[in-house]
Amino acid sequence: MTDTASKTSGRRIVLGHTNYGKSDIRLVKVFRNPGRHEIKELRVDVSQEGDFAAAHVEGDNTGLMATDTMRNTVYALARDRLTGSAEAFGVELVRHFLEAAPRANRVRVSMVEHLWERIEAGGKPHEHSFVRAAGERTAEVVGDEEGNFSVEAGIDDLLVLKTTNSGWAGFLRDRFTTLPETDDRILSTVVTSRWSYGGATDLDFDRLWEGIRRRILETFTDHYSPSVQFTLHRMGRAVLESFPEVERIHFSLPNRHHLLYDLERFGMENPGEVFHADAEPYGLIEGTVERSAS
Amino acid sequence: MTDTASKTSGRRIVLGHTNYGKSDIRLVKVFRNPGRHEIKELRVDVSQEGDFAAAHVEGDNTGLMATDTMRNTVYALARDRLTGSAEAFGVELVRHFLEAAPRANRVRVSMVEHLWERIEAGGKPHEHSFVRAAGERTAEVVGDEEGNFSVEAGIDDLLVLKTTNSGWAGFLRDRFTTLPETDDRILSTVVTSRWSYGGATDLDFDRLWEGIRRRILETFTDHYSPSVQFTLHRMGRAVLESFPEVERIHFSLPNRHHLLYDLERFGMENPGEVFHADAEPYGLIEGTVERSAS
Amino acid sequence: MTDTASKTSGRRIVLGHTNYGKSDIRLVKVFRNPGRHEIKELRVDVSQEGDFAAAHVEGDNTGLMATDTMRNTVYALARDRLTGSAEAFGVELVRHFLEAAPRANRVRVSMVEHLWERIEAGGKPHEHSFVRAAGERTAEVVGDEEGNFSVEAGIDDLLVLKTTNSGWAGFLRDRFTTLPETDDRILSTVVTSRWSYGGATDLDFDRLWEGIRRRILETFTDHYSPSVQFTLHRMGRAVLESFPEVERIHFSLPNRHHLLYDLERFGMENPGEVFHADAEPYGLIEGTVERSAS
Amino acid sequence: MTDTASKTSGRRIVLGHTNYGKSDIRLVKVFRNPGRHEIKELRVDVSQEGDFAAAHVEGDNTGLMATDTMRNTVYALARDRLTGSAEAFGVELVRHFLEAAPRANRVRVSMVEHLWERIEAGGKPHEHSFVRAAGERTAEVVGDEEGNFSVEAGIDDLLVLKTTNSGWAGFLRDRFTTLPETDDRILSTVVTSRWSYGGATDLDFDRLWEGIRRRILETFTDHYSPSVQFTLHRMGRAVLESFPEVERIHFSLPNRHHLLYDLERFGMENPGEVFHADAEPYGLIEGTVERSAS
Repeated sequence: MTDTASKTSGRRIVLGHTNYGKSDIRLVKVFRNPGRHEIKELRVDVSQEGDFAAAHVEGDNTGLMATDTMRNTVYALARDRLTGSAEAFGVELVRHFLEAAPRANRVRVSMVEHLWERIEAGGKPHEHSFVRAAGERTAEVVGDEEGNFSVEAGIDDLLVLKTTNSGWAGFLRDRFTTLPETDDRILSTVVTSRWSYGGATDLDFDRLWEGIRRRILETFTDHYSPSVQFTLHRMGRAVLESFPEVERIHFSLPNRHHLLYDLERFGMENPGEVFHADAEPYGLIEGTVERSAS
Repeated sequence: MTDTASKTSGRRIVLGHTNYGKSDIRLVKVFRNPGRHEIKELRVDVSQEGDFAAAHVEGDNTGLMATDTMRNTVYALARDRLTGSAEAFGVELVRHFLEAAPRANRVRVSMVEHLWERIEAGGKPHEHSFVRAAGERTAEVVGDEEGNFSVEAGIDDLLVLKTTNSGWAGFLRDRFTTLPETDDRILSTVVTSRWSYGGATDLDFDRLWEGIRRRILETFTDHYSPSVQFTLHRMGRAVLESFPEVERIHFSLPNRHHLLYDLERFGMENPGEVFHADAEPYGLIEGTVERSAS
Repeated sequence: MTDTASKTSGRRIVLGHTNYGKSDIRLVKVFRNPGRHEIKELRVDVSQEGDFAAAHVEGDNTGLMATDTMRNTVYALARDRLTGSAEAFGVELVRHFLEAAPRANRVRVSMVEHLWERIEAGGKPHEHSFVRAAGERTAEVVGDEEGNFSVEAGIDDLLVLKTTNSGWAGFLRDRFTTLPETDDRILSTVVTSRWSYGGATDLDFDRLWEGIRRRILETFTDHYSPSVQFTLHRMGRAVLESFPEVERIHFSLPNRHHLLYDLERFGMENPGEVFHADAEPYGLIEGTVERSAS
Repeated sequence: MTDTASKTSGRRIVLGHTNYGKSDIRLVKVFRNPGRHEIKELRVDVSQEGDFAAAHVEGDNTGLMATDTMRNTVYALARDRLTGSAEAFGVELVRHFLEAAPRANRVRVSMVEHLWERIEAGGKPHEHSFVRAAGERTAEVVGDEEGNFSVEAGIDDLLVLKTTNSGWAGFLRDRFTTLPETDDRILSTVVTSRWSYGGATDLDFDRLWEGIRRRILETFTDHYSPSVQFTLHRMGRAVLESFPEVERIHFSLPNRHHLLYDLERFGMENPGEVFHADAEPYGLIEGTVERSAS
């Protein structure tokens, strides 16, 4: 915090927390292995924290890395150091920026990976042609000049739905409650999840991500769900039980309501068949499952 | 066209083409087959054309179907008549509306189908749990009171990319041309396609859609592409050769430019490895391949 | 149409209509008048039609203008020829491309103009600082090598709402009709409009656009609306009566439904006060008002 | 945190922070003052924190308020208690939910207000017809069962641009720096701002919001900007100096880069006139200006 001399209501006006960087750097790398190309598509955000008070208060940019330089650096380092997972590349970028930016003392690199699958042609995967897969993978690496690192991975935009084995009952009823209880409804959500590997920077992040995604999907299917809350906790616990590398996992689960359409008005039955998938409003259930401190 | 009495610049002001309907009706149907549920998710737009001049000019709504009624009807008819493909359901809806709406003489039902795959759990497809697949399927049925029908199907949002076997050379060079020729670039596009089955209303639309999608993907991979134009025609021709049911196919293909990032400035080589996936501007190539009139 | 030799079901497969160009060219021009800067922000799409069969069928790009050249050209011509309205600039661009692109025989330039207002500072409009205004202005110019031009202008994304003086009654009632009649509802829509100036290329397009927008807004307010259809026609007719330069005007008017929330369940009255603004589905009313042929 | 019995790597798996609620409740209220209707359009998100472990871990929903009830409550309370600002309504909602939801001990109500202006008709503001204004206003109220409140307001989506009086120089140059220094560039950003009124719940929030917005806009215009950072701090300090009610203000300012288009290649000058408004990547500068603790 920096004193900026002015005072109002007896307290000085100061500069609080700041950060800056480059967002939405769209990087594609091609690995031209003979007979089997690979591609990696990342959207990268770089953000630096540090001592930027002189720039904010006095207009003195000395020692500030231009965000354009951050952009150039991401592409340049991708040349030799993007060889495996997004997480490992993030670690390389954070290390570089901590060293190269004299005023930065903490650096965050956030990435969204767009996933591609090989096109099947003539019954086998094509060597250099790809089709975009559903959903997105995220990775975030934060490091500081004391050498502390934290690595997080995640999933965006994973839509799932089960047609039965879900209900919602036993909840509070007050003056404004009109929702009936049910023991059979459609459960559908768009999974957004983030999990932490703690300070580990050399795990097999690709294998872990595949396994965690599969574990989340399988757990979604394997039980009667009395609430989104219950399913959230069960998915989180399943991941932590199966993957000791994971310190903590967070879910943000919108409840995509499917409302049975009232066909009785037209003299028709509707035994759980025809639904309106309502866009808004939506329930939103969020929570973290983690390892205890001790 | 209807005379509305007023005159300007010597010519009367009249009502021209009109249509109205309900858009974005979000319908989900569950088929509760024992041991193996199925789901169908459609976004349905209904649009009617006809003699609506009295409503427009005089405020007389006699004989107009409320768009709320169209909504109710879509859900009600889904109960018994949505049993197979979106196209077949569209034909049922069009027939109903032509009969039920006295002032409509032409009805269009446009649908987007969101595709779901079964979740794999314990090594096998789960009986009632699904995950959203990439891309979207479209279907459109138009019918009129003379009994003419036309059925169209399509694909939205199918991203494809090939890392090699594509170029762009031999084009016009003028004062404003700076683009170098290339015989090796990344080719990437988001396929939007619509094809017509003509007046046929009883085809196996699901099997056809799967086959046409596969044919488009395979053709994308199977040649050196001297231009998006060439690949467009080749994909269209492949579909028409393989599927005699298809009268005509249209493609809209944005060219998602991948620009080799200039690393020479930093003393580094970049032999086709590190690219900037530029969001804008983008090339847009559109065209139709069809059967000749005779 | 071009014969491509192949035959299926007795009819040859041919190339139909094609076009290509550059989309989403983001252009900002600053006019540095002393003491009073002006800015113009346009998103430009260029599209050419013509004889592109050799490229599509044989991979021969001779005479094709690269879309990258179209981009360069838009920026280069903006230097000297973007001096007034978007429409006038569109005419310049179309003329240039018809001449410069030997294979093109028809050129379309579509523009979206993002509107800026001066920031008020110290009680007066600032000389070089701007804030984005609501809504968007569109312009489209099409020309062919015979010298025919057509100029269209339009409005996107103009949200309007009236709290009373609107109803919907007297419509068809059938088995699936549940909507009650009303003579007092909220009417709200997002105006999308396009109007044609015919072949005129030298009108005062800026003044016309301002006047037509104001006429649409005023007409929206000036009557009891028995339907969106009626208001559509009335707005169109008002524009044609006031502006003889306009040949025809088209409106696309989604009906943004505002549903009175049922508070009786909680023992409360709700006399037209508390509404749910429903996002989907929505009614969509479209129509054209035009001058008669004779 | 709740012990869930399972252990991995020596530490128990527990439930961490959770919250749930209803999002995207679209509320419109009409105030039917004779001769001068008013409207208020809000998108409301309700979120509760508290003791939800039994639901998460055991599937016991006792005491949980259904998110559907939250929705009903927002509309019901809007009837009598939405009489002024969004902030004041938020305080009412938070108080209600803290009392009505036995398991909630902290409640957050976040709102986005869509702003409407009266349509000018016949030279004067119309009594019941409105057109959507640019930009959005936000408000957020958090309260807990100890009676602590915090009230925040904000602005979303406020685009501003100045054509001169802005530069970027004196920054760090390293191996990957290619950006030249400049003392005259276009500065454009989309202001997202949030400011805190601390625990005050009875301020004149509407007047404050108008004044703060105006102060931000004016300060944007009133200086040579050596960096977005400098302008951020100056805008924040101006708000805190003028409005003692504000404890702290945060800005998130994307740098919408305007790149001078290289016309020299075509033998043309481009003295700060023709720009490419680049969509990505973009710089992102964030920071807080606040009052010191003492």
